[in-house]
Amino acid sequence: MAKEKKLVEFITSRDEDFAQWYTDIVKKAELSEYSSVKGCMVIKPAGFAIWENIRNELDRRFKETGVENVYLPMFIPESLLEKEKDHVEGFAPEVAWVTMGGMEPLEERMCVRPTSETLFCDFYARDVHSYRDLPRNYNQWGSVVRWEKTTRPFLRSREFLWQEGHTAHATAEEAEERTLMMLNVYADLCEEFLAIPVVRGRKTDKEKFAGAEATYTIEALMHDGKALQSGTSHNFGDGFARAFNIQYLDKDNTLKYVHQTSWGMTTRMVGAIIMVHGDDDGLVLPPKVAPTQVVIVPVQQNKEGVLDKAFELKTILSGYRVKVDDSDKSPGWKFSESEMRGIPIRVEIGPRDIAQNQAVLVRRDTHEKISVPLDTISEEVGKLLETIQHDMFERAKAHLESHTYEATTMEEVKDLADHKPGFIKAMWCGCEECENKMKEVAGITSRCIPFKQEKLADTCVCCGKPATKMVYWGKAY
Amino acid sequence: MAKEKKLVEFITSRDEDFAQWYTDIVKKAELSEYSSVKGCMVIKPAGFAIWENIRNELDRRFKETGVENVYLPMFIPESLLEKEKDHVEGFAPEVAWVTMGGMEPLEERMCVRPTSETLFCDFYARDVHSYRDLPRNYNQWGSVVRWEKTTRPFLRSREFLWQEGHTAHATAEEAEERTLMMLNVYADLCEEFLAIPVVRGRKTDKEKFAGAEATYTIEALMHDGKALQSGTSHNFGDGFARAFNIQYLDKDNTLKYVHQTSWGMTTRMVGAIIMVHGDDDGLVLPPKVAPTQVVIVPVQQNKEGVLDKAFELKTILSGYRVKVDDSDKSPGWKFSESEMRGIPIRVEIGPRDIAQNQAVLVRRDTHEKISVPLDTISEEVGKLLETIQHDMFERAKAHLESHTYEATTMEEVKDLADHKPGFIKAMWCGCEECENKMKEVAGITSRCIPFKQEKLADTCVCCGKPATKMVYWGKAY
Repeated sequence: MAKEKKLVEFITSRDEDFAQWYTDIVKKAELSEYSSVKGCMVIKPAGFAIWENIRNELDRRFKETGVENVYLPMFIPESLLEKEKDHVEGFAPEVAWVTMGGMEPLEERMCVRPTSETLFCDFYARDVHSYRDLPRNYNQWGSVVRWEKTTRPFLRSREFLWQEGHTAHATAEEAEERTLMMLNVYADLCEEFLAIPVVRGRKTDKEKFAGAEATYTIEALMHDGKALQSGTSHNFGDGFARAFNIQYLDKDNTLKYVHQTSWGMTTRMVGAIIMVHGDDDGLVLPPKVAPTQVVIVPVQQNKEGVLDKAFELKTILSGYRVKVDDSDKSPGWKFSESEMRGIPIRVEIGPRDIAQNQAVLVRRDTHEKISVPLDTISEEVGKLLETIQHDMFERAKAHLESHTYEATTMEEVKDLADHKPGFIKAMWCGCEECENKMKEVAGITSRCIPFKQEKLADTCVCCGKPATKMVYWGKAY
Repeated sequence: MAKEKKLVEFITSRDEDFAQWYTDIVKKAELSEYSSVKGCMVIKPAGFAIWENIRNELDRRFKETGVENVYLPMFIPESLLEKEKDHVEGFAPEVAWVTMGGMEPLEERMCVRPTSETLFCDFYARDVHSYRDLPRNYNQWGSVVRWEKTTRPFLRSREFLWQEGHTAHATAEEAEERTLMMLNVYADLCEEFLAIPVVRGRKTDKEKFAGAEATYTIEALMHDGKALQSGTSHNFGDGFARAFNIQYLDKDNTLKYVHQTSWGMTTRMVGAIIMVHGDDDGLVLPPKVAPTQVVIVPVQQNKEGVLDKAFELKTILSGYRVKVDDSDKSPGWKFSESEMRGIPIRVEIGPRDIAQNQAVLVRRDTHEKISVPLDTISEEVGKLLETIQHDMFERAKAHLESHTYEATTMEEVKDLADHKPGFIKAMWCGCEECENKMKEVAGITSRCIPFKQEKLADTCVCCGKPATKMVYWGKAY
């Protein structure tokens, strides 16, 4: 049986060393590999298939709200990047510069897009003329580059895949409505599709996007108690429109600036799935996002009729994403491998099961085994997939709730930050000095000002002045 | 009625100036715009939706053959690009170089991928160990950059979208089989989905891909008689494997080099659709690839019941991709616009039609009008979409056939090249000198050595030496 345990043996225990456990899963579940290009990753088929499912679902939800896909260039001429002051300050230090095209130096250097606000603005300035042209609800799927010093697969890499939506509206109200609408699309996708509960809220000015008037965010809590910013939606007001001169002729025959938004979600969500749901046996995929939902493992597959039955089962289960593992590995190895890859349900079927006209369903999330008659297996699998999806969300939600703490003094803040990884809810006066001090004293940053406000105290936990907001604080990826 | 004709008035006639007609359609059908980034284009929603449909269909067909999607970095360190001699010679002159990352110069400059053979080889060298790891049938969707001097929307731009498949196999036979399989996937997609007939064949050594042992191609014929290379599939043999040291341990316990292929199709297929099917009223989309297959235009929409009926029809036709144009434009303008955008069927419905319980279907490809009873409209639309798809292919095929000529002397070649735009079939000895001379004398290049060989003569049309192959020649985009 030594061989059967091999895969798991290579994994560090989650509670022992969370960072190493994460890296082990990325590697052993074959999600991603380092590449020869420093700081960039190779996304392997098992990892990419997860991203494809997220992408397809998100794209479908976008289109339901009237979003259309477009594609803009990957390069930004330096003069274009510099048009909006805050934006260039935020991004210029971390871009990759193209200085040669073919054999010749460029007249003006260009960066590889770290984000495409400036390109969309440049395009809208030429494309939007009248109130009839609004709103523009455009989205783009692609990759962007940010020259990070330290990188981790899916969580932080120099190139990553994402979508970036960029919209232009006639009024400030419409822009605000779109900003919040897209935040909710992200939040719903996380909760309904990825089984990851999130806290919805607004970023403080210190944490907002370079050039934005307001940044909204969804924050998820990983198993280790660290937060992961999982999607952001920005309202730019007319700041970019003024910098790029994007005006439209309104019905009243006057020229007005458009109001803009942008919003993005990235491949880091694959990392979130690992860190919220994974366990010491490997990845655990929520059924809705799992590229393979059911793996059928024939036991004693060389015995007559076993493989036939396995493939017959595959046909019966064709309403789900199902595979038969008929490789020449041992059943134990296959069990271990299917667990490492996080496949929600394993169906074990051997001669004894066939004789009894049944099969054994094994839940990846709880390891629970259930014998089911073959006659009703398709319904049983369908119900079980729903149960798993539901239970995974509930467990993640319970974890988030049990790891969300309240603090009304700095001693409590520090004690929690040092000994109780999770979200810390505390009142805040609204000034950046206190944010800096929270970082300095307790090593935490403001994650968001949640929409669901509570009054925990009258004064700022940090400076004692009157509090204006309740804030979620924490350590973050 | 002047206003109604406006859209069409802006289009140059196809026979008058094909290049300008093409540019006009790209602009007026809102497929693409030039961007501020020289040589790069903005793909607008109407253009991107066509590409999305091509991508989704191609991706589905790939997966049916066992292909898996992955994602590799967009950068190639210079030393990696240089590993395969022919390959670097072919691509190095036309790449964009990144020399700065953040504020610091890079130790080694990197190019933005013009194609990813070297990255896949570098990955396979670390990823493939045993015969059990083969085949690797990987594909990637993304964009690449080639520093072109002259560009045209969709046909040639510095950045373009594509997919690139890269496979690794245990044997030469398997690699050859995969190379041809993917060529046929491209050919079938063109013919069945885009209604574009193609000639399947092999490139001459002069025209093959930098680093390939053999390049296969599908060549389509545009309305102006110029050829468009529409998809290529390359067999690398073990050339790259030797350069990158990609070896596997075979069953017989010896180390062997893998055999590799790559294959790609790009956004230029959007250009092919325009140039094969378009007419003087604008774009004409084959139903299968059309983002909107049916547009319903209410006539006298302010009269009671007309708009309601239009939306009722939309529900009845919900099995197709259908839209109602209820904007405040005049019906004539809407007709003209739906034609410019190439929507296969327009449904006109007004008070008189409603009284008679009928609607008028207008075919985009033939302008034919057909009155159909509302009770059977869904079936009628379904049948008509099939008919249009079929007829568009047959017309394009007839055009290809009637514009394919034979030549057995250089006088004939020159005369055809000067006066009869199209494919010229002629015998060839097999040497590059004759290819160069055909270019010099008649301005044509070898498009492909078709799989379907014919013997038109015993000798090379150019040098008179014994012929080895019949070749398709022509002017190409």
